[in-house]
Amino acid sequence: MLAERPRANEVARPRELSGGAGRSVNIGLLGMGVVGTGLLRALEAKGMRLEPRMGCYVRVKSVLVRDLDKQRELQVAVGLLTTRPEDVLGDPDVDIVVEVMGGEHPALEYILAAIEAGKHVVTADKEVVARHGRQILARAHQFGVQVRFEASVAGGIPIVAPLLRDLAANEVTSIRGIVNGTTNYILTRMAQQGLELGEALAEAQSLGYAEADPAKDVEGTDAACKLSILCALALGAWVKDTEIHREGITGLERRDLEYARELGYAIKLMAAAKNVDGVVYSGVYPALVPEESAIARVDGVLNAVEVETDLAGPLLFTGQGAGPSPTASALMADIIDVTAGTRLSTKAEKKVLYDEPAKVSKVTDLEAEYYLRLAVADKPQRLTDVRRRLRDHGVETSFAMFRELPQTESRVEVVVVTRRVKLDLVQEALSSMEKAGTVLEIGNVLRVEET
Amino acid sequence: MLAERPRANEVARPRELSGGAGRSVNIGLLGMGVVGTGLLRALEAKGMRLEPRMGCYVRVKSVLVRDLDKQRELQVAVGLLTTRPEDVLGDPDVDIVVEVMGGEHPALEYILAAIEAGKHVVTADKEVVARHGRQILARAHQFGVQVRFEASVAGGIPIVAPLLRDLAANEVTSIRGIVNGTTNYILTRMAQQGLELGEALAEAQSLGYAEADPAKDVEGTDAACKLSILCALALGAWVKDTEIHREGITGLERRDLEYARELGYAIKLMAAAKNVDGVVYSGVYPALVPEESAIARVDGVLNAVEVETDLAGPLLFTGQGAGPSPTASALMADIIDVTAGTRLSTKAEKKVLYDEPAKVSKVTDLEAEYYLRLAVADKPQRLTDVRRRLRDHGVETSFAMFRELPQTESRVEVVVVTRRVKLDLVQEALSSMEKAGTVLEIGNVLRVEET
Repeated sequence: MLAERPRANEVARPRELSGGAGRSVNIGLLGMGVVGTGLLRALEAKGMRLEPRMGCYVRVKSVLVRDLDKQRELQVAVGLLTTRPEDVLGDPDVDIVVEVMGGEHPALEYILAAIEAGKHVVTADKEVVARHGRQILARAHQFGVQVRFEASVAGGIPIVAPLLRDLAANEVTSIRGIVNGTTNYILTRMAQQGLELGEALAEAQSLGYAEADPAKDVEGTDAACKLSILCALALGAWVKDTEIHREGITGLERRDLEYARELGYAIKLMAAAKNVDGVVYSGVYPALVPEESAIARVDGVLNAVEVETDLAGPLLFTGQGAGPSPTASALMADIIDVTAGTRLSTKAEKKVLYDEPAKVSKVTDLEAEYYLRLAVADKPQRLTDVRRRLRDHGVETSFAMFRELPQTESRVEVVVVTRRVKLDLVQEALSSMEKAGTVLEIGNVLRVEET
Repeated sequence: MLAERPRANEVARPRELSGGAGRSVNIGLLGMGVVGTGLLRALEAKGMRLEPRMGCYVRVKSVLVRDLDKQRELQVAVGLLTTRPEDVLGDPDVDIVVEVMGGEHPALEYILAAIEAGKHVVTADKEVVARHGRQILARAHQFGVQVRFEASVAGGIPIVAPLLRDLAANEVTSIRGIVNGTTNYILTRMAQQGLELGEALAEAQSLGYAEADPAKDVEGTDAACKLSILCALALGAWVKDTEIHREGITGLERRDLEYARELGYAIKLMAAAKNVDGVVYSGVYPALVPEESAIARVDGVLNAVEVETDLAGPLLFTGQGAGPSPTASALMADIIDVTAGTRLSTKAEKKVLYDEPAKVSKVTDLEAEYYLRLAVADKPQRLTDVRRRLRDHGVETSFAMFRELPQTESRVEVVVVTRRVKLDLVQEALSSMEKAGTVLEIGNVLRVEET
């Protein structure tokens, strides 16, 4: 990973944007999908009102699109659209490049080109920040420009700026949350309406909350990108999303949510990272969350991020994690800040360039309680037997119950909650019990989240 | 109220603080009570760690105290303490004056003197900001210095900066929350343990959550100061705390919380302001809050602020609203920001100096549902009778129940929930019903909060 100190002779002249009555700030927009269109709409609606607050006028100079002739919801002025990246990146009048194409490539190349041309960059692109944030920030530092990415995590909830600025005096010990609205909607519907995963997903798709190919959401990739960014900002650990321990929600059945409720828990797709003795453990995983906790009550498409700090204590930020307007709110905050000359990136850059990088590990290397749903033969002593076998393998249990299965008479389902233990021990125990025939099928293994 | 435009010839030379390796920023601290001591402790613990992040070292140059000889929890260097304000305000080496004395005077005079000496000001003092914020910001603008007050509202929860900066592109339509931890602790204990107000208050006092004289908390003055500041930042309406409609919690009985729970509500001391058709309605009042709402679940000493915005949608910020460490977190964020040269105040100053001030009114001028607890004679048709009489006075009801009172046989207690109506109509109805003998005693009249 690139983390060179800047060489003075390479530093381009950054743009001076602050102050100057009547001055306009020129935006070059990369991408005009849902997010880009939302930003253009918001700028159109707000332009005049924002001018006195900002001391300058925001003007969109050019918009990079794939196809000039595509029918668009929003009419834009002739001559604004272009299919040539150099019309935006090479235009000396463009002060801030706003990248809302999404994805890794060519977003990365465009962002680096903009930085090297001395332009500030605002992006909503979680993938490019999660995978190349370190390199991008180092390059920005080198060229004396700002790179801002409030919109890349948790949509309209201010979280990047609070972590870097408002909580700058704090050491963050843990950050976790619900950062994918699609899966949270699906889990909420499964819990509240008793839907199976497929039904809830179809509903989310019909409402526009989930895409036709829902893989990035339901497999946790989207959440992992966001966690990667939070992890870097809060805990100083740049872990690429692809290197984060990741379990999606695809293995969940309605019964898991029902059993969890009987036990006093909701099931949420958690994105979590914590610093334990200097090592940062992170993961994205569906977890049992105590029903009385604030995060268990974050329902529907809402997002929430919980931060544990040494001075300010625990903080919870809740709001809309996606959608064109919330994302536009975050993009505009970054544009306004860059225009005002605020150097938010300082702490992030310093972390990148000078901080000792934190050691990283997987959340599964920490002990936790686990919820186990197992199919076993329907015979006397089935609970006692499962618990004894688990104990033989070093896995203590604090709770066990069984439920009859509607379709079968020869087997029942046993739900067990373990005491704190490492996951590999649980897995060894279960695989050995499966071999021995004590367990006929492993239904699910889920972490129980600590409060 | 003073809101002159700056005259160029009056502008002092503001301090240039940003950048400069090895440079130190000198703090002059006004006050060394709980908050001041908390800040000194945090600076002591964090100094070395913050230096690389900030690019400079924070040094406490002097501390104004009342009594040099007082025994203090924290040992400070000889020569740091002074009883003469001019040692801090007149010291050319002091870059930032941090005011943590609290109260209105002489805090106001010291802050203005610091500004006029070209020093930046960071304050935790809600009273002085609520009552003189407009004047202070205008003066700061005139002298080209920054005034920051993140610590004055909701302790460790970042709310001032998010409103001014992260949500800068949004129009806020409503802001409300629980901003007094003492009363929230008391109400939580009354609800959860069935305590009467006096018992819960005594408990809060013994735990250090309430002062010996709890008037500012239980009468809502503290919350009104914080609401005044939120109202100015979020809605552009400077309403002094003394001009805000204010009801404390002193009239609440355990029974009110019990009845509320039966109806599906918690009771919380709300600080709320909203913009309806260009008029800002504000108030501090105990209200029935639907149990399933996020704010009803903010328990104990926690604070929460909910903001409704046009782009980002509804946002909720939850955390510790008081205490030396959370307050130090907020003070340090302001110190770091001022040091980094961030001009957060811009939007607030612009609002003060150039924005059309919003028209203001009381929250009781808006219609709401009301909860009424009334003592009536124990006779047949008592519910029907109360409802009919209320209707005769233009107050429709959606719910009514009665409960027997333990100490008396001749009267019962009737609980009614009205439909949306203005408070004065309710009050007229009740006072007329009292005169007519339909109502023997008015137990309580509480707003029902809308979700």
